[in-house]
Formats: sequence, C-alpha cells, structure tokens
Amino acid sequence: MTTRWLTPDEQRAWRAYVAASSLLEDALDRQLQQEAGLPHLYYSVLAALSDVPERRLRMTDLAEYLKITRSRLTYAVTRLEKDGVVRREDCQWDKRGSVAVLTEEGMALLERTAPGHVETVRKAVFDHLSPEQIGQFEEICSAIATAIQGGDPQATPTGSRPGSGSGSGSGSGADDLPWRRRACSSGQSGQ
Amino acid sequence: MTTRWLTPDEQRAWRAYVAASSLLEDALDRQLQQEAGLPHLYYSVLAALSDVPERRLRMTDLAEYLKITRSRLTYAVTRLEKDGVVRREDCQWDKRGSVAVLTEEGMALLERTAPGHVETVRKAVFDHLSPEQIGQFEEICSAIATAIQGGDPQATPTGSRPGSGSGSGSGSGADDLPWRRRACSSGQSGQ
Repeated sequence: MTTRWLTPDEQRAWRAYVAASSLLEDALDRQLQQEAGLPHLYYSVLAALSDVPERRLRMTDLAEYLKITRSRLTYAVTRLEKDGVVRREDCQWDKRGSVAVLTEEGMALLERTAPGHVETVRKAVFDHLSPEQIGQFEEICSAIATAIQGGDPQATPTGSRPGSGSGSGSGSGADDLPWRRRACSSGQSGQ
Repeated sequence: MTTRWLTPDEQRAWRAYVAASSLLEDALDRQLQQEAGLPHLYYSVLAALSDVPERRLRMTDLAEYLKITRSRLTYAVTRLEKDGVVRREDCQWDKRGSVAVLTEEGMALLERTAPGHVETVRKAVFDHLSPEQIGQFEEICSAIATAIQGGDPQATPTGSRPGSGSGSGSGSGADDLPWRRRACSSGQSGQ
C-alpha cells in the first residue's frame, strides 16, 4: 500500500497543531500547579464532576467524559481522594463499579481556581481568535474527536455502548477507545 | 478583577479541543507503541532530528523545537540512547551543552514507522477536513502557539533569545517557556 504522505499544507497545519497543543498543555499545567497544586487533568476531573447532577459519576463514565483510560483516571482520583476533594463510593446499581463524588472541599477548590484557569485559557486561546475562528475551531476539533471515536459523535457519559466502530476511526476501532480498555495503556505518554 | 468567563460558543470550542487533543494523543501513542514501542513524544524526537542538517541538534534547541522542558527531553533521550536510536555527544562550541544525534538505527526505525504514523494522522485528522479547514486549523493553532510564546512567532531552534515576553503570553512570560526552565517542571502532567 502506498503511503499517503501529508501535503505541504497538511504538514504546516500538523506542525502548528503539535506545537500549540504541547505549549497549551504546559501553560495550563503550570498555572494550575502554581495556583492549586494540580495538573490540568486533575482539575478537569473536578470540573467534570461539578458539571453533572449530584456531582457524582461512575468511574467508567467519568473516564469517557474525560476521554482517558480508566487506569489514568484511577491514578488521578486516588490522589484527589487523598486531598479530600473527591470521594469514592460503591455504585448502587453495579457491584463492580464505583462512583466518584465531588466533595464540598473539591467544589470550594474548583471555585477558587476556576477564574485563574479561565484567564489562562483566554490569554492563550480566545483573546487571539475571531468569533468566526472560534466556530471553525469547534468544527475542526469536533470532526477529529468524531473520527477517532469511530464516527460516533453521540458518545455520552451515560454509558451507551454502540457496536465496535465502523473502521472509520483512527485504525483501532471504537472498542479500543481509552475508557473501554482494561489494561494499563500507553496513554502514560512521554514520561 | 472580574472573571471573563467563556461564552457558550467559546465553551463548546474549548470542550471540543480538550476532547480532540486527548483522543488524538492517545491514538498516536497507541499506534506508535504498538508499531515501534515508542510513545508519540519519543517518535517526535527522532522525526525532529531527521529534519535538521547532519541530523544533530543541541539539547536546548531540540527542546525548543519540540516545545517541551529540557528535563522531559533528557528523560526521553536517555531512553532513546539505550535503544541505540539516538546518540549524545558533547557540544563543540558550548562546554555546558550536549548534542543529540540520530543514529543510522534511529533513521531506519523512523523510516519503518513513519508510514503507519502518517496513516493514523490522516485517518484521525486530515481525511475529515476540507482544504479550507486545513488552512483554518493552521491559522488557529499558529495564533495559539504565538500567543503562548509571548507574541514571538519566530522562535526558532537556532537558539535566538528575544527578551522576556511582552506580557501578551499566557501569563508567565517568555522566559518561562518550557525549554528555558531549569527545574523539573509540572510538564510531567497527569501522571
């Protein structure tokens, strides 16, 4: 099979994306570490829980919400539990499952931290994009997320499980999405 | 100071970005781990070195090229050296510096691995974007990278060092960019 190399336009876009995403993750981590002692992913766990009814979500659904592996989430929640900002409970309707709950302390930490985080996101991203570009950015990112999820844009944190991808995903199929994998994965990237 | 919360449009764009970048990094890591036993960042080290004259770059310049901290790069290069795909040499014109060199084995690994990697990038990203969107994606990502680098879009891996940011960056100033930091940083995100 002939390799479909990237065109010069695609190469420029890809390099710009890789640079921007690396710089952005570093800037977000750094600001949140300084202000709350948490990296961006851990903050995202708190933000996700604050966003759902009763501030509680099954671990599997939370991993799907955050688009990460369950092993990575377990690692994060264990630390957040030690800090007293998240609590884990047994799941009432699924004996194998457990539920992550945002504590009052967690909500307070989030409320203290959110303004600084939002300001960082603004200064790094939205202060520099036109309203038109904001729409384009959403469409492009949604197309990418949909493609990787095997053309299943409706994947929600409510636990719905469509069949194993259509092959239009990134080559691994929807059953291979991070939150559906059992084993510790390569998502522990780069360290 | 009043918090400038994100508008609904900005929120949608931001969520789409966070989801896409997380899914994309996972998909890239996974494919490269399976095919070459390397996460995406390590592959990027090889690709960067293959892209410069004599396939060699000072560690500081390589960190800037990749937009990562020097401690993170050192960690990666130490592993790549053990695999025999990168070699480290003393820098001829800077006693404190060292240079990373892509070995023949590294070049061979890259040549074997590049087609599968490019195919993953295509299937996850470019197969789903119109030529117009590819241009938009580049512009948006370049605007973000420029903003975080303190409005210094010309930051190159040749070691140029403009003054300490204009304050238009993400709040930390250009001296705080990953590759200019000395200490082990919070870039070890999420794990």
